[in-house]
Amino acid sequence: MTKYYFKDDYSEGCHPNILKKLLNTNFEIHDGYGDDEYSNEAKQIIAEKIGDKNANIHFISGGTLANLIIISAILKPHESIISPSTGHINTHEAGAIEATGHKINPIKSSDGKIRVNDIQSILDEHTTIPHMVKPRMVYISNSTEIGTVYKKRELKELSEYCKENDLFLFLDGARLGSALCSKGNDLSLSDIFHLTDIFYIGGTKNGALLGEAVVIKNDELKKDFPFHMKQRGALMSKGRLIGIQFVELFKDDLFFDLARHANSMAMKIAKAVEQKSHSLLTKSTSNQIFPILPNILVEKLEKKYGFYRWEKMNNKETAIRLVTSWATKENIVNKFISDLD
Amino acid sequence: MTKYYFKDDYSEGCHPNILKKLLNTNFEIHDGYGDDEYSNEAKQIIAEKIGDKNANIHFISGGTLANLIIISAILKPHESIISPSTGHINTHEAGAIEATGHKINPIKSSDGKIRVNDIQSILDEHTTIPHMVKPRMVYISNSTEIGTVYKKRELKELSEYCKENDLFLFLDGARLGSALCSKGNDLSLSDIFHLTDIFYIGGTKNGALLGEAVVIKNDELKKDFPFHMKQRGALMSKGRLIGIQFVELFKDDLFFDLARHANSMAMKIAKAVEQKSHSLLTKSTSNQIFPILPNILVEKLEKKYGFYRWEKMNNKETAIRLVTSWATKENIVNKFISDLD
Amino acid sequence: MTKYYFKDDYSEGCHPNILKKLLNTNFEIHDGYGDDEYSNEAKQIIAEKIGDKNANIHFISGGTLANLIIISAILKPHESIISPSTGHINTHEAGAIEATGHKINPIKSSDGKIRVNDIQSILDEHTTIPHMVKPRMVYISNSTEIGTVYKKRELKELSEYCKENDLFLFLDGARLGSALCSKGNDLSLSDIFHLTDIFYIGGTKNGALLGEAVVIKNDELKKDFPFHMKQRGALMSKGRLIGIQFVELFKDDLFFDLARHANSMAMKIAKAVEQKSHSLLTKSTSNQIFPILPNILVEKLEKKYGFYRWEKMNNKETAIRLVTSWATKENIVNKFISDLD
Amino acid sequence: MTKYYFKDDYSEGCHPNILKKLLNTNFEIHDGYGDDEYSNEAKQIIAEKIGDKNANIHFISGGTLANLIIISAILKPHESIISPSTGHINTHEAGAIEATGHKINPIKSSDGKIRVNDIQSILDEHTTIPHMVKPRMVYISNSTEIGTVYKKRELKELSEYCKENDLFLFLDGARLGSALCSKGNDLSLSDIFHLTDIFYIGGTKNGALLGEAVVIKNDELKKDFPFHMKQRGALMSKGRLIGIQFVELFKDDLFFDLARHANSMAMKIAKAVEQKSHSLLTKSTSNQIFPILPNILVEKLEKKYGFYRWEKMNNKETAIRLVTSWATKENIVNKFISDLD
Repeated sequence: MTKYYFKDDYSEGCHPNILKKLLNTNFEIHDGYGDDEYSNEAKQIIAEKIGDKNANIHFISGGTLANLIIISAILKPHESIISPSTGHINTHEAGAIEATGHKINPIKSSDGKIRVNDIQSILDEHTTIPHMVKPRMVYISNSTEIGTVYKKRELKELSEYCKENDLFLFLDGARLGSALCSKGNDLSLSDIFHLTDIFYIGGTKNGALLGEAVVIKNDELKKDFPFHMKQRGALMSKGRLIGIQFVELFKDDLFFDLARHANSMAMKIAKAVEQKSHSLLTKSTSNQIFPILPNILVEKLEKKYGFYRWEKMNNKETAIRLVTSWATKENIVNKFISDLD
Repeated sequence: MTKYYFKDDYSEGCHPNILKKLLNTNFEIHDGYGDDEYSNEAKQIIAEKIGDKNANIHFISGGTLANLIIISAILKPHESIISPSTGHINTHEAGAIEATGHKINPIKSSDGKIRVNDIQSILDEHTTIPHMVKPRMVYISNSTEIGTVYKKRELKELSEYCKENDLFLFLDGARLGSALCSKGNDLSLSDIFHLTDIFYIGGTKNGALLGEAVVIKNDELKKDFPFHMKQRGALMSKGRLIGIQFVELFKDDLFFDLARHANSMAMKIAKAVEQKSHSLLTKSTSNQIFPILPNILVEKLEKKYGFYRWEKMNNKETAIRLVTSWATKENIVNKFISDLD
Repeated sequence: MTKYYFKDDYSEGCHPNILKKLLNTNFEIHDGYGDDEYSNEAKQIIAEKIGDKNANIHFISGGTLANLIIISAILKPHESIISPSTGHINTHEAGAIEATGHKINPIKSSDGKIRVNDIQSILDEHTTIPHMVKPRMVYISNSTEIGTVYKKRELKELSEYCKENDLFLFLDGARLGSALCSKGNDLSLSDIFHLTDIFYIGGTKNGALLGEAVVIKNDELKKDFPFHMKQRGALMSKGRLIGIQFVELFKDDLFFDLARHANSMAMKIAKAVEQKSHSLLTKSTSNQIFPILPNILVEKLEKKYGFYRWEKMNNKETAIRLVTSWATKENIVNKFISDLD
Repeated sequence: MTKYYFKDDYSEGCHPNILKKLLNTNFEIHDGYGDDEYSNEAKQIIAEKIGDKNANIHFISGGTLANLIIISAILKPHESIISPSTGHINTHEAGAIEATGHKINPIKSSDGKIRVNDIQSILDEHTTIPHMVKPRMVYISNSTEIGTVYKKRELKELSEYCKENDLFLFLDGARLGSALCSKGNDLSLSDIFHLTDIFYIGGTKNGALLGEAVVIKNDELKKDFPFHMKQRGALMSKGRLIGIQFVELFKDDLFFDLARHANSMAMKIAKAVEQKSHSLLTKSTSNQIFPILPNILVEKLEKKYGFYRWEKMNNKETAIRLVTSWATKENIVNKFISDLD
């Protein structure tokens, strides 16, 4: 058994259906740059799931690239983006957003989510016109970087607030599959579409080799989007590579099956952790969980399993991050649980 | 037969060996972000071909992304890059280089190449310090956008001139395979490495699904390169996807076999074109050729084959662009040749 | 007599009325950042001259700063700006426009001006969507960098063409005073306003210590302009410094008087040059002229006067650049003329 | 009496000596772009005060422009700058630093200053290479935005720490005059020079019409600095305008006299505030003080004096910001003090 089993959700290749389809279509000849038959089919299937044939869909190879294209395509130079302090764009993208010229206004968040009041406080602080940036967009991720998930009521409140305050709402869905399949989730793909201006559906962390599907509702934002993709190096010559994957992931809802599997593996561990009287750092219902374990146990587990130490809680305990995926095997999960003793 | 047979060299999937390897390794668990076993193996193989174990190699998904990362990683804000007017960065990247803040100084070029005198004339024009940009890098592509190829003597002259004038020399090798396997070529991978500061080896247009291998010689440029990749969205979670491809392409020189095939298909057509008393727009020895044909013939061919009209020569003739690839079938080439009558 | 008499139009301080006013108002207390009484008065006077009280006016310290703010405030990242190859933004701003992320599409120009056909050819070249930048703005200067001036008919043609083709028209008026007071000019400030989307009136080169007045007609462009000024470092704490100057320059049309003087000095020299059987490089009617003189004469003049050698014409002759200003003394002009013999 | 008497330190024009000198030199002819006799003289005088003739000095019209030029000239794209959360670059520059592509890492600060431990905590958080920005520069201001001043010991600690950790240290001296003349200050201009890599001396807020003197110690940073100034629009045609001002400010130490006056006016009010049993929000020893006053008193004062409400302390009290300057009249200060009753 290799050691990095719970390190992340992109340690394996991809779901076998995808490779099979790549094999079967390999010698077909298609137009480049995403204008192939499979990309178009994938866009149509996703638009149908969303329930709006005017949804504008584009495929981009990864999350950071999607984030920087979306934000820089929409904002004017003096406009900023509000993000939870834990947001991927604020911490783990090597300044990708700032490199396109925009300031991020972080909101301290303990659960990875932000609320209307938090945003209002940022707006209240930015009234010294024109000396300060003009917050114009709100960034959220679902599921969040610490595994929590938005409820429909929460997203609705954000959505309405953003509309009233002339803010674009952008949802980073690198782990949207896991969020939508999590216990207690009451949001659908269609809800996400209607409650945001732009969002994306992550393939890379849910069974694809690579690929995120950006979905644009706002008509103004649809305009010229491919120029921005090209300018940032995201227009792939062999666009079919992502198109084929999204066809496979969505034509029979494989995408959701994979996410459900990942979640159930995480929840199985979480349940065991609590049964063994340990606690969890965050109220995660998705495929990332953060057990707080005695250091001695952490050290023992590290010898057999790969995962990150997330936060030192005190002298005796550490929170670790465990990530499950579409490919996580249940027997490994069972072994891990028994090793918790 | 589909119509876009000679449109480009990225219309098919990839060489079957690659898919086979992806299948065989699919459930292996690897670290992300290019730090996997296959990426490391590929880097080692390429370094050996180059003959310098200190060559620093990174994999990036496509040419525009590679170009913008390389240029913005190296230049300071006031420094510019000299390019042939036909250079990909100057025409077909939607302003990607300028979007990172740098001016391109184009040199009018009739054969896609530039020479020392051209560069000198740009330097001569930029002496009003500090009112003008400071040219600091030279961009060339091999093969060029119109199929021509640099000779060793030419590259050596550029290399020496650049060293003397404190200019970085960067070679875009999106079609480097075709160049190195073209008739009359006297450059090796190792020569390219020693005569430039940085270059890349294109996989996407020579049998891979996607991927370019950036090779850095200059020690100063090696430093922090992964930060730049991450910041521009080029650090792929499943880096193995490109690593595996370059292992397959280079371990038994498949890369060169594929390029040779593409070239021979192009040369076969070129020879036929000339035998049938038509001329060629450029002196291409690589996989892109530009026959000048009567309009009536062009129209006839368009009904059966896909290709781009490149330039209207006069009222009766048009230059068309034909691109062959690793996947071009000889029987189609033969049919095309017979249709030239 | 100091040597750099005809080097430029910013070698002296400013018109004495300005210093007088600065003295008289020095201890008055005013709000900062351009929201002072004098800035507001100057804006009102200029709006009246233009004949449109909705004209939106802002003061910026210099031309490069004005150019980069205007262009980056208006264009989206993938949009480019068309400019004569001789345009200041294309040559003498150290890449200021590219540093804000935008490509310049230069048009070869022999007289410093561009025409509808030139622009059309750029648009024709940019149809490979989305692989190329999207030209969205046209930059012209009046007078041009080589002293020529637009006729009303020419500007009207450009204006109509730009409207039809969804292009913004931006006029750099660093030397607009000289243009509007040149012989044969048939444009008024009001015409400039109605035929462009945005332009500026240069103070620095026409008697002010520093300052350009940006005038915005297009309502969409008016929005948030001060944010862009602040972000680029152009919002001066003591905005009154420019406000006071523009009050003095425009309240009694001093601005035009100064420009007329500069022009008449240049024309006097130009006439003498021609009378002495020398020719002029450009058909300048403004305060920059380019006599073509024997090298031996150029060397003689260089001992007594400051000016730039502009272009080597042949082995025997050189074109020099002479710039006159609001402060050029007629007796020096007379001496220079007699030294032409 | 006008109402905005304590609003800021740039409400009046400039010290009369400056206007006198502008008048006396107005018709002199000088080279442009800062290469005039007065700019050179001013640079020499400042270098002498600093005690190092190799100090490299440049004049820039304002603080935001100086900040964005300095930071973008020095940092590579992936490098970030550490700043107190209250730092001008982090709050009141409309995203100027991010617009040049760089992230700011803010440090929560209660007194406007930062310490070694704060910086270390930022470095500790940025170890996930290459996913996070690389902190490479530290920004501090002296005096700070809330009137506090660095002690020599504090600056020395920062300086040593930065050297050990390969961080550039940049000091924003928009109010450096006030800092160096404040009670208890033990730093000299020469200390500032030796303990930082780059800093600037603010003229705008200490008696000049406009202008900051950037001083570079680090040899690597000196290189090409004028290119960066030009590219950002900061190379003034009539550079003499700032040169003359710094000659006047520094030739007889007028600069320090003015700062001392401003400080003494502020301290007089501060003392009175405390004698009248009110408290001060910050331990300011410079020309910005923040008395906490009963709301009813604040309202009364607002009728006669201009100032900003800074922070609501509770239902009954508000902290206000009072700024004094070189031009603040003592009789107004006395009136204000008596109105405190």
